[in-house]
Amino acid sequence: MLNYQLDKTFAALADPTRRAIVERLVQGPATVTQLAKPLPMSLPAAMLHLKVLEDSGLVTSEKVGRVRTCRIDPLVLTSAEKWVAERRQMWERSLDQLGAYLDQSKTEDQA
Amino acid sequence: MLNYQLDKTFAALADPTRRAIVERLVQGPATVTQLAKPLPMSLPAAMLHLKVLEDSGLVTSEKVGRVRTCRIDPLVLTSAEKWVAERRQMWERSLDQLGAYLDQSKTEDQA
Repeated sequence: MLNYQLDKTFAALADPTRRAIVERLVQGPATVTQLAKPLPMSLPAAMLHLKVLEDSGLVTSEKVGRVRTCRIDPLVLTSAEKWVAERRQMWERSLDQLGAYLDQSKTEDQA
Repeated sequence: MLNYQLDKTFAALADPTRRAIVERLVQGPATVTQLAKPLPMSLPAAMLHLKVLEDSGLVTSEKVGRVRTCRIDPLVLTSAEKWVAERRQMWERSLDQLGAYLDQSKTEDQA
């Protein structure tokens, strides 16, 4: 995934309201009204957060008649997960290598 | 992990320079000078990014003599990974449930 897309994805996730919207949408599609209802803010304020989520690609929406339905894009969610998971794995590997090096040094000291 | 901590972690990751610093630190500890050297910016600019990473908890640092050494905090990295992974899993479960429901409807239609 391109760098600027990851910028937008992580920035979109850096807000509790937007994470709450993501939490709702991973359970299935929802209309804008359904998404805004449980949020402690006005509809226009909720829609601004939805716009950030749509700009990031995490959320897509489709209007049928007067109803706009939102969905999560699992690929964008997965790409953010993958970036973090790979870095965590790199950290674990570097720790393993350090461990192996220390074990070897110890064996050499005892020899 | 508390909401405001996740805010800070995702906000810290929403920048290519800060992700480059994380990429370097998952390979092992590094001094501020070592971290700043490959970055296309001044040392003070690099240090501002490091400050954001330290404020988020993703990076810790320790000064010995005149040298400040930075390390990744794997727990903070893991908590961000966990948040995204759990939401991706919730999305997969909701898709499985929809699939099961559609299969059942099909069987009922054919009965």
